[in-house]
Amino acid sequence: MSRSHAPALPDRARVEEAARWLSGRVVRTPVLNAPAIDRLAGARILLKAENLQTGGSYKMRGAMLAVGRLAAAGHTGVVAQSTGNHAVAVALAAGRHGLAATVVLPVDAAPVKVARARAAGARVVLAGTAVEERLAAARQLAAADGHPLVDAYDHPDVLAGQGSASLELIEEAERAGTPLDALLLPVGGGGGVAGACLAAAGTPIEVYGVEPLGCDSLARSLAARRPTPVVPAPTIADGLRPDCVGDLPFAVARDAVRGVVRVDDDAIAAAFRLLLLELKVLVEPSGAAGLAGALRLVTGSDDPDGALRPPARPGGSDGVLRVAGVPGGSGGAAPGRYRTVGVVLTGGNVEADVVARLATGPVAGLVRMEGVAA
Amino acid sequence: MSRSHAPALPDRARVEEAARWLSGRVVRTPVLNAPAIDRLAGARILLKAENLQTGGSYKMRGAMLAVGRLAAAGHTGVVAQSTGNHAVAVALAAGRHGLAATVVLPVDAAPVKVARARAAGARVVLAGTAVEERLAAARQLAAADGHPLVDAYDHPDVLAGQGSASLELIEEAERAGTPLDALLLPVGGGGGVAGACLAAAGTPIEVYGVEPLGCDSLARSLAARRPTPVVPAPTIADGLRPDCVGDLPFAVARDAVRGVVRVDDDAIAAAFRLLLLELKVLVEPSGAAGLAGALRLVTGSDDPDGALRPPARPGGSDGVLRVAGVPGGSGGAAPGRYRTVGVVLTGGNVEADVVARLATGPVAGLVRMEGVAA
Repeated sequence: MSRSHAPALPDRARVEEAARWLSGRVVRTPVLNAPAIDRLAGARILLKAENLQTGGSYKMRGAMLAVGRLAAAGHTGVVAQSTGNHAVAVALAAGRHGLAATVVLPVDAAPVKVARARAAGARVVLAGTAVEERLAAARQLAAADGHPLVDAYDHPDVLAGQGSASLELIEEAERAGTPLDALLLPVGGGGGVAGACLAAAGTPIEVYGVEPLGCDSLARSLAARRPTPVVPAPTIADGLRPDCVGDLPFAVARDAVRGVVRVDDDAIAAAFRLLLLELKVLVEPSGAAGLAGALRLVTGSDDPDGALRPPARPGGSDGVLRVAGVPGGSGGAAPGRYRTVGVVLTGGNVEADVVARLATGPVAGLVRMEGVAA
Repeated sequence: MSRSHAPALPDRARVEEAARWLSGRVVRTPVLNAPAIDRLAGARILLKAENLQTGGSYKMRGAMLAVGRLAAAGHTGVVAQSTGNHAVAVALAAGRHGLAATVVLPVDAAPVKVARARAAGARVVLAGTAVEERLAAARQLAAADGHPLVDAYDHPDVLAGQGSASLELIEEAERAGTPLDALLLPVGGGGGVAGACLAAAGTPIEVYGVEPLGCDSLARSLAARRPTPVVPAPTIADGLRPDCVGDLPFAVARDAVRGVVRVDDDAIAAAFRLLLLELKVLVEPSGAAGLAGALRLVTGSDDPDGALRPPARPGGSDGVLRVAGVPGGSGGAAPGRYRTVGVVLTGGNVEADVVARLATGPVAGLVRMEGVAA
C-alpha cells in the first residue's frame, strides 16, 4: 500500500506555520456548542464548524496551502483525487491561484460534490470506487499534463493545513477556559486525524479517530502496525469510504492517536439530526460521524469493539491491542472521564434528498434522548 | 390597538448599553457569508446567524435583558406571550435568573417551540391564534400571579436587546471593511426591525422590514401612519403571523425604516433551501424570510407591491406612499444600488418534518439559480 516516498513527518510547528499562512485566506470558522448536546453527552462538546468553510469542508485548508505552494513554485495546473471534498477544495484553491485543476472522483461520488467541483471550474474525471483506481487515473492525468498531484492525505501540506482546524479549536477552547480533554475527527484517508495529532502534540489532549463500521482501515492499521486496507462496507458517510488510510497519516497517527471509535449508520444519522435540529447546522454524514463517535466515547458504550486503543507508545509498550476500557472495562470511556471534548465538523456538502431522508426519524441508536432541549 | 402606556422611545445609546450588558450573557453569533448567495444577489450578503443563539433565536437577547432587570428588581416570576421564540427565550432567561415563567402561545404554535418552552421549565398556556387573545390570557395570568408581563415587542428592553444583534452585525461589517448599505429583518411584532432602526441610527444604512404577503401589518401601518392590524394570511413563516405591529416598534420604525419588502411562501422556501444547502445552517422560515426579502430588494423585483417606502421624514415629507423605486421605478431597488446588505437570521426553531418538506424542491420563485455553487 505504499503510495509515497517516505516524506519527512510534519510536526506541530508546521501546523502552526500553516495556520498563520491560512489566516485571512480561509474562513476562521466558529466553535459552536449546544446545551442539548452537552446534556446528552454529560460533557461539554465543542464543535468546530468547518462545514461553514469555503467549499463546504475543512479540505479547503490543506488544498489552499498545497496549491498555493505549487503556484508559487510556478506550476500552472494541479491534479487531485478524492471522494469529493478534497476535489472541490483543490478546484477552488486552483481557481484562486489561477491554476488549471483536474480532479478524479469515484463513480459513486455524492452528486453535489461532483457539481461543486465542476462549478469551481475543474475538469472532473470519474474513475472506479477504490482509492487505487482513482490514484492510477490521477497519476496518468498528471503525467500527461505535466502537472503535480496534490494527494488528499499523503501530503505534508495537506496534513498541516487540515491540522490548522484542530489547532484553532484547541486554542479557542483554551482561551474560553475549557481546554480540551479529547479531540475527535472522522477518518477517511486519515489526513484530518493525523493533523489533529500534530496540533495536539505536547498537550494532554487525547486524539481519537472515528470510523464507520466496516470502513475501519485506521483501526485495523493500528492493530497490524502498518497501513491495512479494508473492503469498505456500505455507509451513509460517503467521505469515509477510502479503503486504506494513507501512509503519511498512518506514520503520524500510529503512535500519537489514542484510539478509534467505530460507529454505525444509525449513530451517524442520529448525530446528523442532533447537529441539524439542536446546533442548527447542516453537516454531511461523514462530518456528523465525529459527533457520533464523541457521544459514544463519553457515554461509555458497552460495545467491546466500540473504542480501540493502539498499543502504548514504543518504550512503554506491552504490544497488546486493548479496548479503551476503564474500570469495569468494556468499550468506550468511563462517563465523566472527559469534561470537554472537541469535534471537528469536517464538512457540509450533502444532497437535498439525503437531508430530507435523514431529517426525520428518532434521534436514537446512540444515547437516550429524553428531555432534550436547547 | 394601543397596548402600551406611551413609554419613552429607546435610542441607539440604549442598544449599545444592552449590547454591553449582554456580552458574555448571550452567544456572540457569527456573521456568515456564502459565495453562492452573493453571486445570486449580485451583492455581498452578510448573515448574522442568530439561529445559533441560545434558545435558537435572537429573542434571547431582549428576554435576557428584560428578565434580568426584573430579577434585579426583586420579581420572582414573569409572564410572556408570543408565537413561540420569545416564549422560549423568556423561559430560558427566567431559568437563568431563578424566576418562574408562564408563557402563552397560540393554539397553532410550532410544536418544537411549545416543547422547548416546556423543556426550559416554563408553564405553557395555549390561547387562541391572535395577539389580543394571547395578551388577554397573559394579562390575566400576570394579574393572578402578581408577576410582570414581558411583552414580546412593546418593551424598550426587548427592542434594545434585539437591536444588539443588528449592532453587532453593523460593527462587524465595518471592521471587515464592508460596511452595510442596507439591513433587513423579518417583521412579526416589529421588535427586531425597530431594534435595527435604533442600531443603525446616525448611519447611512437603510433598514427594511420583510413581511409575508398578507401578514404585512408594518407595511399597512406605515401607509396609514398608525398601527394597523391585518387578518393574517396563512404562511410557512409561523413567527411572522402577529396580526399587528406593536405600538412601540411602530413609533420607532415609522420615521426610521426605509421600507418593507413583501415575500411569498415560495420565496421564503427558496431562501430556506439556500441557507441550508449553501450556507449550511438551519434557519426557520420566519428567519429565512429576511434573506428572501434581501434577494428581492437587491435583484430589483418587478412587482410594484414588492418594496414600499414610507413617507419621507417629517419636515421634508410629501406625504405620499411610494414604491421604493429607482430610475425606471417599479418595485425593488436597482440592481447594483447596494454593495453590502446585512440580514439577521432571527431563528432556527423548526420541525424536522418541515425541514424534510422544504429541503427538496427547486430553489426558485425568487431569482434564477443556474450556475450556483459555493
